[in-house]
Amino acid sequence: MAQNINRRQMIAAAAAVAALPAAAATVLRVDGERLKATLEGLSKFGRPEGGTFADGVSRTAYSAADIGGRAYAMGLMREAGLNPVIDPAGNIIGRREGTMKGAKPIIIGSHIDSVRAGGNFDGDVGSMGALEVLRTLNDRKITTRHPVEMAIWSNEEGGTVGSTAFAGMLEPGALDNLYYGITLRDGLKRIGGDPERLAQAARPAGSIHAYLELHIEQGGILDKARIPIGVVDGIVAIDRYDVTITGFANHAGTTPMPGRRNALIAAARLIEAVDSIVKREPGRQVGTVGQLAVFPNAPNVIPGRVEMTVELRDLAESKVAELGRAVQARAQEIAAETGTTISFHRTENIRAALAHPAVQSRIEAAAKQLGLPFIHLPSGAGHDAQLLATLGPMGMIFVPSIDGISHSPKELSTWGDCANGANVLLAALLAIDTATI
Amino acid sequence: MAQNINRRQMIAAAAAVAALPAAAATVLRVDGERLKATLEGLSKFGRPEGGTFADGVSRTAYSAADIGGRAYAMGLMREAGLNPVIDPAGNIIGRREGTMKGAKPIIIGSHIDSVRAGGNFDGDVGSMGALEVLRTLNDRKITTRHPVEMAIWSNEEGGTVGSTAFAGMLEPGALDNLYYGITLRDGLKRIGGDPERLAQAARPAGSIHAYLELHIEQGGILDKARIPIGVVDGIVAIDRYDVTITGFANHAGTTPMPGRRNALIAAARLIEAVDSIVKREPGRQVGTVGQLAVFPNAPNVIPGRVEMTVELRDLAESKVAELGRAVQARAQEIAAETGTTISFHRTENIRAALAHPAVQSRIEAAAKQLGLPFIHLPSGAGHDAQLLATLGPMGMIFVPSIDGISHSPKELSTWGDCANGANVLLAALLAIDTATI
Repeated sequence: MAQNINRRQMIAAAAAVAALPAAAATVLRVDGERLKATLEGLSKFGRPEGGTFADGVSRTAYSAADIGGRAYAMGLMREAGLNPVIDPAGNIIGRREGTMKGAKPIIIGSHIDSVRAGGNFDGDVGSMGALEVLRTLNDRKITTRHPVEMAIWSNEEGGTVGSTAFAGMLEPGALDNLYYGITLRDGLKRIGGDPERLAQAARPAGSIHAYLELHIEQGGILDKARIPIGVVDGIVAIDRYDVTITGFANHAGTTPMPGRRNALIAAARLIEAVDSIVKREPGRQVGTVGQLAVFPNAPNVIPGRVEMTVELRDLAESKVAELGRAVQARAQEIAAETGTTISFHRTENIRAALAHPAVQSRIEAAAKQLGLPFIHLPSGAGHDAQLLATLGPMGMIFVPSIDGISHSPKELSTWGDCANGANVLLAALLAIDTATI
Repeated sequence: MAQNINRRQMIAAAAAVAALPAAAATVLRVDGERLKATLEGLSKFGRPEGGTFADGVSRTAYSAADIGGRAYAMGLMREAGLNPVIDPAGNIIGRREGTMKGAKPIIIGSHIDSVRAGGNFDGDVGSMGALEVLRTLNDRKITTRHPVEMAIWSNEEGGTVGSTAFAGMLEPGALDNLYYGITLRDGLKRIGGDPERLAQAARPAGSIHAYLELHIEQGGILDKARIPIGVVDGIVAIDRYDVTITGFANHAGTTPMPGRRNALIAAARLIEAVDSIVKREPGRQVGTVGQLAVFPNAPNVIPGRVEMTVELRDLAESKVAELGRAVQARAQEIAAETGTTISFHRTENIRAALAHPAVQSRIEAAAKQLGLPFIHLPSGAGHDAQLLATLGPMGMIFVPSIDGISHSPKELSTWGDCANGANVLLAALLAIDTATI
């Protein structure tokens, strides 16, 4: 599933494109300038005081900037005749009717909330790209068979809140969770949601024809390979563990080296083990120790306890599980070597969400039509699409993000890449509209 | 200097003792029961509410418990005719005159302040042991040639404040430092010191005949070897470094394993390197990474920066420096391997304080006289004695602490070990009194 890109594949992809027929020039295209203007307009909501587009945005969910950005988007959706409404989970849903009676909707969209000190592309490109696609259909007076719904999912960065509720998977207890100082319940109320009617936001499984999401690729793979389009194989499974290493805290001056039970030595070996176990076979799997705390954490005391996280991701759930077993087995050896005890507690077990093969094929075909080289790759990050995948066939289109930087004001995609992504979204949407999946 | 104990040496020491003449029984001895009662009396100051002796003490410097304990000690010193006074640095100094006109004093003592949630032996044994020695001289009407001063140094645990001032080495700016919420200046005032006259607490170099301190051994070496007396070679040199490792923080899901610049991987290798470099040659040197912080410290973000300490100790300053160089050289290799930069900043450079060879010989001879096996060992922990070593010949006597536990309510030495230590202190004092050092 996860495949490696190498130089040879890139050249082959480029060559395939070069061989495309001149017909590519006649494919329907979005208005790249209008898309740029729309993204620039959105960027003003949450921009640092006195800053420019290059200073990014802090448009965290439920903030004044989020509320402003949402109003801006709804205004544009209204102008485009999409009759946007806010569902009980705070999702903004617009709709463009199709010709086929009783047809299931195709949903396209993304999110417009950002992390604190985030950029102008993560979520925004997919949201405004979806709008641009529908504006283009309006301009060309193209009707689809299926209705097309445009969604701006609420609070993606705080845990895909809106799309989780849309998939009927948000536990009511989650409404008590805090996000930047307020509960999700109060946050939903601020943006026009209705936490009391949350269950009514849910759509049943099988109720959508397809879901398509355009998004920036946050790993820098496309940028490094200079490939404009990524066809997403799926969104990786994630296992996350809290690990506690218990040794014995003692005086760092008086305690001889032999016989120390130093929890940080064990931690050092485990950090290395996670890295080497993950790397020992080819593939796109990743493993990270990102959080670590030492106790008592004084220069003159041998660490008696270390608490750390281990996170493992791959598109294949079986590989994630197998890596977890290998890391835990090595941990028991390290414990024996260092006179410590090491315990694992799995805190997250997020299942992989595979993109539907037929949807992937339509995205591939769209890229080919447009003369755009593409590669397949998994999404290492979570997206709203993984929730939508529980309701019907899902596909994602990635465009490059320079140096793979995201969640930063430095996040940057070229306007050309944004337009390419929207063009692929448009072509894939039209192809899926006429297909049986 | 630092020597290893091995089973053979222990047996040899025990055999040497067994061969001692029966004369050992006639050596002057302290009253072990009285010493025990005095220590039990002191233990009530700072004992947790409703606790027993086994619950230890929180008698941090300048606290009500410290003030109470000091008043208790001064009362006992007064009863023993020592006319205790509080010097400007808060040290309690008593004096028993000698017969030789103009002779320099021999100083004996330790401290009675504890860490928070500390034990009843660290400092207390040496302080109450010194008192017991002088009481024994009184009981036996023994006069010494040199005057003997008994000192209870103020705030040892907060940075050997009193003894540093006594050695004329306390920077006036240090009075602004905080210790448990109050400045040292205000702390000194609370315990009867006079920060305005601090300089008057200082004694000139060469002004003492010798300094002797009895203390528990905090590494568990004596306890493990079942040897009752440690003759301290000296107090180790300490180099401490702040180390900053800079990599590049990035998304833990989207960033492929190759090309990551993970500061925590570099830290893991450096933690292991400190351990293995310190252990690669025989000796008592120790090295510890005790404090470490990861940034941004989130399970799903590759660590971009790690800040950690490296602490190195040995009796030989040259070895401490050489270990520091070796660790830094290895760090540069690790930086190259991991795509990070690693910088070192030395924050502490404490010189070794060697015990005077003649004083060590007198302590050895005293142990032999008493039929007590002994070994030589360095002190890996700092003590007031290292400051006194700048004023004249210094020696320290260690007694076992069970499992080497200290700075804990579980800190425990047997009453027999305490009495043994006081007996060695007494015999060494009498030998040094008649010797030219």
